[in-house]
Amino acid sequence: MGTVDHLAPERNKAQFDVEEMKIVWAGSRHALEVSDRMARLVASDPAFRKDNRPMLGRKELFKNTLRKAAHAWKRIIELRLSEEEAGRLRFYVDEAAFTDLHWGMFIPAIRGQGTEEQQKKWLPLAHKMQIIGCYAQTELGHGSNVQGLETTATFDPETDEFVIHSPTLTSSKWWPGGLGKVSTHAVVYARLITGGKEHGVHGFIVQLRSLDDHMPLPGITVGDIGMKFGNGAYNTMDNGVLRFEHVRIPRDQMLQRVLQVTREGKCVESNVPRQLIYGTMVYVRQTIVADASCALSRAVCIATRYSAVRRQFGADGDGVETQVIDYKTQQNRLFPLLASAYAFRFVGEWLNWLYRDVTQRLQANDFSTLPEAHACTAGLKSLTTTFTADAIEECRKLCGGHGYLCASGLPELFAVYVPACTYEGDNVVLLLQVARFLMKTVSQLGSGKKPVGTTAYMARVEDLLQCRCSVTKAEDWLKPNVVLEAFEARSARMCVARAQSLSKFSNPEQGFAELSANLVEASIAHCQLIVVSKFIEKLQQNIPGKGVKDQLQNLCYIYALNLVQKHLGDFLSTGCITPKQATLANDQLRSLYTQVRPNAIALVDAFNYTDHYLGSILGCYDGNVYQKLYDGAWKDPLNDSVVPDGYHEFVRPMLKQQLRNARL
Amino acid sequence: MGTVDHLAPERNKAQFDVEEMKIVWAGSRHALEVSDRMARLVASDPAFRKDNRPMLGRKELFKNTLRKAAHAWKRIIELRLSEEEAGRLRFYVDEAAFTDLHWGMFIPAIRGQGTEEQQKKWLPLAHKMQIIGCYAQTELGHGSNVQGLETTATFDPETDEFVIHSPTLTSSKWWPGGLGKVSTHAVVYARLITGGKEHGVHGFIVQLRSLDDHMPLPGITVGDIGMKFGNGAYNTMDNGVLRFEHVRIPRDQMLQRVLQVTREGKCVESNVPRQLIYGTMVYVRQTIVADASCALSRAVCIATRYSAVRRQFGADGDGVETQVIDYKTQQNRLFPLLASAYAFRFVGEWLNWLYRDVTQRLQANDFSTLPEAHACTAGLKSLTTTFTADAIEECRKLCGGHGYLCASGLPELFAVYVPACTYEGDNVVLLLQVARFLMKTVSQLGSGKKPVGTTAYMARVEDLLQCRCSVTKAEDWLKPNVVLEAFEARSARMCVARAQSLSKFSNPEQGFAELSANLVEASIAHCQLIVVSKFIEKLQQNIPGKGVKDQLQNLCYIYALNLVQKHLGDFLSTGCITPKQATLANDQLRSLYTQVRPNAIALVDAFNYTDHYLGSILGCYDGNVYQKLYDGAWKDPLNDSVVPDGYHEFVRPMLKQQLRNARL
Repeated sequence: MGTVDHLAPERNKAQFDVEEMKIVWAGSRHALEVSDRMARLVASDPAFRKDNRPMLGRKELFKNTLRKAAHAWKRIIELRLSEEEAGRLRFYVDEAAFTDLHWGMFIPAIRGQGTEEQQKKWLPLAHKMQIIGCYAQTELGHGSNVQGLETTATFDPETDEFVIHSPTLTSSKWWPGGLGKVSTHAVVYARLITGGKEHGVHGFIVQLRSLDDHMPLPGITVGDIGMKFGNGAYNTMDNGVLRFEHVRIPRDQMLQRVLQVTREGKCVESNVPRQLIYGTMVYVRQTIVADASCALSRAVCIATRYSAVRRQFGADGDGVETQVIDYKTQQNRLFPLLASAYAFRFVGEWLNWLYRDVTQRLQANDFSTLPEAHACTAGLKSLTTTFTADAIEECRKLCGGHGYLCASGLPELFAVYVPACTYEGDNVVLLLQVARFLMKTVSQLGSGKKPVGTTAYMARVEDLLQCRCSVTKAEDWLKPNVVLEAFEARSARMCVARAQSLSKFSNPEQGFAELSANLVEASIAHCQLIVVSKFIEKLQQNIPGKGVKDQLQNLCYIYALNLVQKHLGDFLSTGCITPKQATLANDQLRSLYTQVRPNAIALVDAFNYTDHYLGSILGCYDGNVYQKLYDGAWKDPLNDSVVPDGYHEFVRPMLKQQLRNARL
Repeated sequence: MGTVDHLAPERNKAQFDVEEMKIVWAGSRHALEVSDRMARLVASDPAFRKDNRPMLGRKELFKNTLRKAAHAWKRIIELRLSEEEAGRLRFYVDEAAFTDLHWGMFIPAIRGQGTEEQQKKWLPLAHKMQIIGCYAQTELGHGSNVQGLETTATFDPETDEFVIHSPTLTSSKWWPGGLGKVSTHAVVYARLITGGKEHGVHGFIVQLRSLDDHMPLPGITVGDIGMKFGNGAYNTMDNGVLRFEHVRIPRDQMLQRVLQVTREGKCVESNVPRQLIYGTMVYVRQTIVADASCALSRAVCIATRYSAVRRQFGADGDGVETQVIDYKTQQNRLFPLLASAYAFRFVGEWLNWLYRDVTQRLQANDFSTLPEAHACTAGLKSLTTTFTADAIEECRKLCGGHGYLCASGLPELFAVYVPACTYEGDNVVLLLQVARFLMKTVSQLGSGKKPVGTTAYMARVEDLLQCRCSVTKAEDWLKPNVVLEAFEARSARMCVARAQSLSKFSNPEQGFAELSANLVEASIAHCQLIVVSKFIEKLQQNIPGKGVKDQLQNLCYIYALNLVQKHLGDFLSTGCITPKQATLANDQLRSLYTQVRPNAIALVDAFNYTDHYLGSILGCYDGNVYQKLYDGAWKDPLNDSVVPDGYHEFVRPMLKQQLRNARL
C-alpha cells in the first residue's frame, strides 16, 4: 500500500519541468541542494519525530523540545555543518525553541548594537552556546510602543553600575521567547537614567540565571507566561515573564555602539549613525516575509494535494465522484493562495536584495533610500503575514471536516503562524507607518524631491490620475503594462484622495487619526502593487526549464486579477477600471484556473517539502490519505483502553440511574 | 484589588438603560431571568471550573468532561430543572460533550423519523439517559454528499433483520460526536437494500456497546479519531470512528416514519410527507445561527473590554497613553463586529419564528413556504458561521499579543467554534444551494409565480434594476428605505446578471459549475439583505428603555454601511450607488463609531455574561487584567519547578560543552 502513488495520475498531467521549478523556488541550485539534504537528514532521524506533539502535556512537550534542540546542536557539531546548513537544519526541525531567539535576536542584537569590544567578549560565548540569550523588550503593558517601556536602568556612579528595575506591575517583561525557563542571559531594553535625567530606551546585557545550577540570580523573578494558542504549536517555547528588583550590572554591559555612558555618568553619542537600527528592522522583517511564503506554501501544498485526493458529489456513470479540485468554487479559493505563495516568495527574494543594498549604502553613509526601504519592508511584513494567517485557515477549510483534525497539520500550522501578525510590529500599526510615508511622499511631489524605489511611480502621478484602462477583451488582462498601470493608478489615486481628505483638517494629526482606517487601505493598495510589480519583474528574468515560465505567468496574473476582484471597490471607485473590464478580469481569471488545474500538484511538489516537514496526513506525498487517517486514529491516548477512564465513576452511574448517590 | 471596577468610568459613560438592553438581548424578561440564574449556578459551582482546560492532557481532559456531564445531570435531577433550565445550564457549562449529541441529535432523530411506537419505546430510555445515543452519518470518505454514503443495511427476510455493514475503508463512520468512547447506541445512516435493490439512505437504531460492561458488541469496531484543533476546545468530545462487520439488528430498528420495510422485505411509503426532513434541517440550522450570535458576542465582549483597558501610544501631558478603543482603526474593526453580534441575534430570533411558522404549515400540509425557508436558513447558517469564525480571530488580533495567550479565552473559543463552518452543511455547498434557489426564483419571475418570504423583493425586480440611490449627504444613509433599497437592488441586479450569464451556456449544469464562484457572491448579497432587513424590522418594533432604540439604530446602520464598504465592488459595479455616495457612507460610518464609543462597554455588558462563561482574563468584568494575567501565569505546569525538567539532560551539557558525549 505504501508504495502506490495515488497522486501519480496528477503528476503525469504536469506541463512543465518540476525539477527546474524547484530551483526557481529554492532560489538557486545550491540552495535547493542544501535544503534537500538538510530536510532529508531531519526527516530520517527519529529523534526529530513531531507527529505526537499535539497529544503531549505542556511539561512533556517542553522537555521534548529541549531534547530536540540539544540533538540538533549535537548533529550540527558532529557533522561540522556550515552556518547555512545549520540554519536549514533548524528550519526543518520545525519546532519553535529558545534557540530561535538565541540565534535570531540575542546574537544579532549584540552584533548590531554592541561595540567591537563587546562583540569580542560576548559573541564567542554565544556562538558556542556557553551562554544562552533572549531578547527582553516587550512588557506586560507595552507592546507596540517601545518608547513607552517602563523598565529602568539607572546609572550609579558610586559603583559604576546600572541598576535594572521593574517599577510597576505593567513593566514586567512579558513574552520574550526562551526567557521563561532556559536563557541564562538577556538583552534587556530599559529607559536609561543617569544624573537624574532620562536618555531614551537602550539595550543591556543582563545575566538572569546561574551558570552553575540555573537558579535565577538575586533580584530576578522569572517564569513562563502560560499556554498559548493551539496544540503543540508555540507551547514548545518558554515565553517568559521577568521582574527586576534593583539588579546591578557592570557599566560595560550596556550595548553602547550608538550611545555610551562615561565613568562619570555622562552620555556620549558615538559617530555610528542611529539609523542603523532601521537597517536591523529591515533585516528582521524581510526574513518574516520569507517565512510567510514558507508557511503559506506549506498550507497550500496540503490543501492542493488533498483537494485532488478528495471526491465529493457529481458521481458520473462509473460511480466515481468528482475530485474537489475540479470545482470552480474550490479553484477560486485555492489557486489565488497558490499564486500568493509564489508571489510572496519572489517579493521576499527581492526584499533580501533590498536589505543587502541598504546595508551597503549605510556603510557608505548613504541614508537616502532608508526611509523608503523601511516603509516598504514594514508594509510587506504586514501584508504578507496577515494574508498568510488568513490563508492557512482558508486552506484548513478547503480540506473540509478533516482539516479540523490535528493530523491535517493545519491547526498547528495556523496556531504557530498567527503571532507573526503581531510580533515585530503590529500589522495595523505598520500600515499606518506606511501611510505616513505615502502621505509625505504625495505632499513632496510638487517640491522637486523625486520619489525613490517602490514609490517611483508616484512621479507619474499626473498621468496616473488620468489614464484609462485599455482592456477591451479578457486577454488584455494578460499584458504586464496594463496590469501594472491599473495597480499604479489605483494606489496613486487612493493616496492622492486621502491626502486631499487630510488637507481639510486644520490639525493634521487629528485628521490622520480620524481617517486612519481609510489610510490603511491606501497602504494596502501600495503594498499589493509592490508584490505584483516584483512578480512581473521576475517574469522578465531569464527562466530556464520547459514550461516553467508559462506556469509562473499564469500564477502572476491569478495573483493580480484575484486582487482586482477582491478590491473591486477600490478600482471602480477611483475609476481605474470599468465594471465591464472587471467582468473581463473575472473571465480571464476563470480561464487561468483551467490552465493551472493540471499543473496544480506539480506546482506544490516544486516546494520540495518532505512528509516530515509538512506534518500532514492530508498532504502526504503519495495521497494515501484515508488509510493513514484510519491507522493514525488509534494512536490517540483515548484509545489506549477500550472502556475510557472515568466510565465507572461517571458514565455507568448515569446509565444505571444511580447518580443521585454518586460522589462526583 | 478585586473589588475595584477598573471599567466603572466606562460604564458611567453609557447613554442608555443597560438593564432594558439585557432583556432585548435575552429575548424576554423571562429568558433573561432563567439565563441569569443558570449562569450564576454554574459559575458558583467549583465542579464546573474550566480555566485549567488548556493545560490538561487528552485523557485527563476527557475524564473531566465525563465528570462535569455527570455532575450537571445530577444537578438537573436534584434541582428538578425544567427542560429550558437544563438547556441553559448545559449552555453555561460551556464544554462540548457527548450529551450535546444525545439531546441535540439522537433524540430529535428518533422524534422526527421514528414512528409513534418507536418513539414510545426509545424516547423514555433516552430521556432518562438509560441509554446514550449519537448520530452516525458522516463517513471517512463522505461528508457533504449524504447520498454518497457507503454503509449498507441489507434486509435478511430469513431472520427478519437488517445486516449493517461497512464494505470499504472509506465507509467507516468518522466524526460523530459521543461515538468514540461513550455512546451505547447510535442512529446509523446506511443505504437500505432489500430484495437486491437499493432504496436510498435511511436511519437505523443500532446498539454499539454492552449496557453491562460498556464493551463494543460483536462485529463493532469503535474508537476516538484523535486530537482536534486547539487547546481544550473540542478535544473534550469523543468524535468517533465506527466499522460494522455484518452487524444484525431487528427490523423494527429502522426509523420508519416515512418508509417501512414489511416482513417480506417490501418497501412501503407512509403518508407522512418526506419534506419533514427539511423541517428538521430548518430547526438545526436556526439553532446554529443563534449559536453564532453567542460565540460572536462573547469574542466581542472580550475584545471590547480589553480595548478599553489597554493603552498604547499617544501619551498626552500626564503620561497616560490612549485607550486603544479610541483609535479609529480599532473602532473600524471592532464596532462592525459588535453590530454583527446584535444583527445575528435578531435574525436568529426571526429564524426561530420562521421555523415555528414552517412547522405549523407542515402540520397543515402546506409546503408552499418550505423551499424558501430552507434556502434562507441554509444561507444564513453559512453567512453567520463564516463571519463569526473570522470575527473571533479578528477579536483575538484586536487584543494584540495577549490575545494569543489561552488566558484570553479567544484561542479556545475560535478552535471550538470553527467546525460550525463545516458541519450541518459545508458553507460553500450551502451557498450554492441558495444560488440554485435564487436562479430558479429569477427564472420564474415572468411566469406569474410570486416570490415569497425573503425573496418577495424580487417581484419588484423591474424597479430594482432601474432605481437610483437618493443619497446626497451622509445622513441620508440613516434612512431605512434608502439602505434597504440599496441592498435589494444590489442583490436583485447580481441575481439577474448571473442568470443572464448562465443563459449563455447550452448546458445549464455546466454553466452553473463554471460560474459557481460568482453565484456564491449573489447568494451572499441576498443573505446580507435578509440580515439587514430583519434588523430594520426589529427597530420598527416597540422597544422600551431609555436610549435603547437609539443604540440599536446606530448598530443597525454600522452593520449595513460596513457591508457597503466591504462589498463596495458589488454596489458600484451594479450601479446601485455612486463612488460619491460610497464616500458619504464612509463618513456616516465614522460618525456612528463616535456615537457608539461611549456606549461600547455597556453594549457588551448587556450580553450579561459571567466571568466564568467568558473564560477570559482580558475580558473580565472589572478590567483588572494585568494583575490577573501576572498571577495566572504562575499556574502553568512549567512553573511547577524553577529549573525545568530536562535541564540536566539537555541544557546543562550544552552550556558546559559536553554535548558530544551526551546520550539524547
